[in-house]
Amino acid sequence: MELYYGYSGNVARILRSIGVEPGDRIIVVLKDGTVFNGILMPRQVLYSGRPVLVLKLDNGYNIGLNIDEVSDLRLVSKKQVHHHGGVEAVGRAEGLPRIVLLGTGGTIASKVDYETGAVTPVLTPGEILEWVPELAEIAVFNAREVMSIFSEDIEPLHWENLSREVYKELVEGVDGVVIAHGTDMMSYSASALAFSIMNKPAPIVFVGSQRSSDRPSSDSAFNLRAAFIAASKGPFAESVIVMHGETSDTYALVHRGVKARKMHTSRRDAFQSINDKPIAKVYPETMEVRIVGRIIEHRGKNKKAQLKNKFDDRVALVKVYPGLQPEMLETLIDKGFHGIVLEGSGLGHMPNKLIPVIARAVENNIPVVMTSQCLFGRVNLYVYSTGRRLLEAGVIPGSDILPETAYVKLSWILGSVSRDLGEVRKVFLTNLAGEFNERHILDLYPRWNHE
Amino acid sequence: MELYYGYSGNVARILRSIGVEPGDRIIVVLKDGTVFNGILMPRQVLYSGRPVLVLKLDNGYNIGLNIDEVSDLRLVSKKQVHHHGGVEAVGRAEGLPRIVLLGTGGTIASKVDYETGAVTPVLTPGEILEWVPELAEIAVFNAREVMSIFSEDIEPLHWENLSREVYKELVEGVDGVVIAHGTDMMSYSASALAFSIMNKPAPIVFVGSQRSSDRPSSDSAFNLRAAFIAASKGPFAESVIVMHGETSDTYALVHRGVKARKMHTSRRDAFQSINDKPIAKVYPETMEVRIVGRIIEHRGKNKKAQLKNKFDDRVALVKVYPGLQPEMLETLIDKGFHGIVLEGSGLGHMPNKLIPVIARAVENNIPVVMTSQCLFGRVNLYVYSTGRRLLEAGVIPGSDILPETAYVKLSWILGSVSRDLGEVRKVFLTNLAGEFNERHILDLYPRWNHE
Repeated sequence: MELYYGYSGNVARILRSIGVEPGDRIIVVLKDGTVFNGILMPRQVLYSGRPVLVLKLDNGYNIGLNIDEVSDLRLVSKKQVHHHGGVEAVGRAEGLPRIVLLGTGGTIASKVDYETGAVTPVLTPGEILEWVPELAEIAVFNAREVMSIFSEDIEPLHWENLSREVYKELVEGVDGVVIAHGTDMMSYSASALAFSIMNKPAPIVFVGSQRSSDRPSSDSAFNLRAAFIAASKGPFAESVIVMHGETSDTYALVHRGVKARKMHTSRRDAFQSINDKPIAKVYPETMEVRIVGRIIEHRGKNKKAQLKNKFDDRVALVKVYPGLQPEMLETLIDKGFHGIVLEGSGLGHMPNKLIPVIARAVENNIPVVMTSQCLFGRVNLYVYSTGRRLLEAGVIPGSDILPETAYVKLSWILGSVSRDLGEVRKVFLTNLAGEFNERHILDLYPRWNHE
Repeated sequence: MELYYGYSGNVARILRSIGVEPGDRIIVVLKDGTVFNGILMPRQVLYSGRPVLVLKLDNGYNIGLNIDEVSDLRLVSKKQVHHHGGVEAVGRAEGLPRIVLLGTGGTIASKVDYETGAVTPVLTPGEILEWVPELAEIAVFNAREVMSIFSEDIEPLHWENLSREVYKELVEGVDGVVIAHGTDMMSYSASALAFSIMNKPAPIVFVGSQRSSDRPSSDSAFNLRAAFIAASKGPFAESVIVMHGETSDTYALVHRGVKARKMHTSRRDAFQSINDKPIAKVYPETMEVRIVGRIIEHRGKNKKAQLKNKFDDRVALVKVYPGLQPEMLETLIDKGFHGIVLEGSGLGHMPNKLIPVIARAVENNIPVVMTSQCLFGRVNLYVYSTGRRLLEAGVIPGSDILPETAYVKLSWILGSVSRDLGEVRKVFLTNLAGEFNERHILDLYPRWNHE
């Protein structure tokens, strides 16, 4: 079966005959007189061989038209390809912000080849524009792959590489960096970039997808548009996550990476800010960026980014539970780990019988940070005697930092700053990228439906 | 300073002279003619020596009256003490449901002695009634201490003891058991009792407090009243948690223990149901129990409880994160652990390089369960190749069970049912106490405020 951008048979023949390619704007007239004006979409699922032509309409919806009902089909305008900086860069017009899209191997930047069943990354700017033509109206962009792994396989070493690649782009002067990343470990990586590049001149935007881009219900295109808008127009120069804000396609949220967490296995609005408001809402239809939260660091053309991208891979994140065995912690000391983050209970507690092991870790120059598995609220080790004993043992209280962020921050401090216990404590307790929020207002706690 | 139920000076002298004790109903007439009718409360904080008399009014609020403004003070009725079953049992009337309150050492059942500053448990029925006189209108009750430890020090061994004590009460025929328990590890303990006693004839109600009972803002009394109502009137015979439903004193929630989690370090409404609705709302003012969710097991006088209370303390709960070291899992195999629960990423993933270690664990007869650190949603190992590899390695998919519940359930299966891998898998995948919810509706996901 010969395919033309995923189309076969009659449809492929007609499209090829008039030289229309995906991304082009066309007019389609049906036999009943209805006229559709939109962007031709590529490679659709072959619904039981039905000859269907897919258009993206200006209202954002895709429509499938039966080719047998089509009486006329005309090209309105070709998609535009610009050349920029020696590398292929595409966009509808010069003068738009300049964005780079870095691929890491997540769901968003892959497509299924329906002929072979293989999943391949979508990574040339031309291919991406074929898939989400609206991007051309937001920015001129380049795209390249910096790695290709599942996000669950990300390790601290990968953050070093990713940080370096992003840093190069920021130094080169892009208006924003978009990183396509698997959602599983996205908040860990977004936290890593929050610390590894300081004094950011422009936003670093992580974006992903909860459904792969080949599925009709995919959130990829919506999220990618929102990420491009945030990266090109957002006044914040922070490491952020941009994903669906609710299940429908109304707005996306810009979360501060250090305060965000994947809170649902499958929903589009899985990412939520914990103990903080999102920074902004993005409305892809109107290309509006509306600030709703704090901005810690602002965009600035003349800011000089600083790269400190070493992460210590000898840090452990340990969840506390009833009956947590002392040997689990002793192993970490004996095997020469460099740092421990505890996900304690309530205000930051753990079994009293484990406190001597914690004291021994600190005596062995291993910093130990306490966070809470409650996620919401703040560690407070002054309320109960267990907490006071933990402080005496030398535990660093994590305030309202997320356990995941604490893990990344401790790994970064030990790798890039110091292994001196006093210095580690000082830097850990310093609010570097908004990872602590001093002011908790009541409505940071979400509302559960009790009816 | 001589004290009379916490009162000193003038107030103590007046109260003693007319023989009024805390828990008694009195009428107080002020010099301006205002009349208050309520229950005298004991041992209040000595606000800079101001001579204040504290009454609990019928609307549930406490009011402090300046003794200098009081023109008259009369006894209306003494608190009533009944004798029941040989043990002191108190309540306002015979014919009320019969409840037992078991103390474990949490915040709710302690009080501060303002003379010495010492914190002591409140555990005779008389003392509890002094403190929350409304309980006498709900049930006739006994109270005793079964252990006295911080909840963060709870271990599987304690669940065996607690289960046995609760079982004895159920066999003896009480209408409900209330367990005062520290909030830190309460959901783990409530899960334990969900499994260790099957075919429950009556509710097992865990209750705690986010502020100790000596503080003016304490939620102890409200929660205790709600717990008594749930235990005496609730149609559900499950292991549940009863705590504040919102920050104000309108209603408490009855959460299924296996589906509940402490989601905030300090808020009164810290406990929330995850992937499930709460079973009911309780309105202490009207003593109403309104069912809002599923009931898995109903109350029944003739039901014969079954006790299987062994918990295996060689089970580990391990959180997955980027760079999780293989040696953390290898240690568990080498040290002869009996089971592992993983808190994976997203749909239930972990680094691919760890999968061979998982396979080795299973080969060593160690069951491995996969849950998700997202908390909301459901593990699905069929979507991505990492998940399919985990299934091939022998991982038991945890569906929508909470990681904490999975830990308790695996510990219980290994201790009370079987260590045969096939049997463990079969029992784990069986919905024993509502720990799996097959039907997720959209509004189980809480609403974050994005404005």
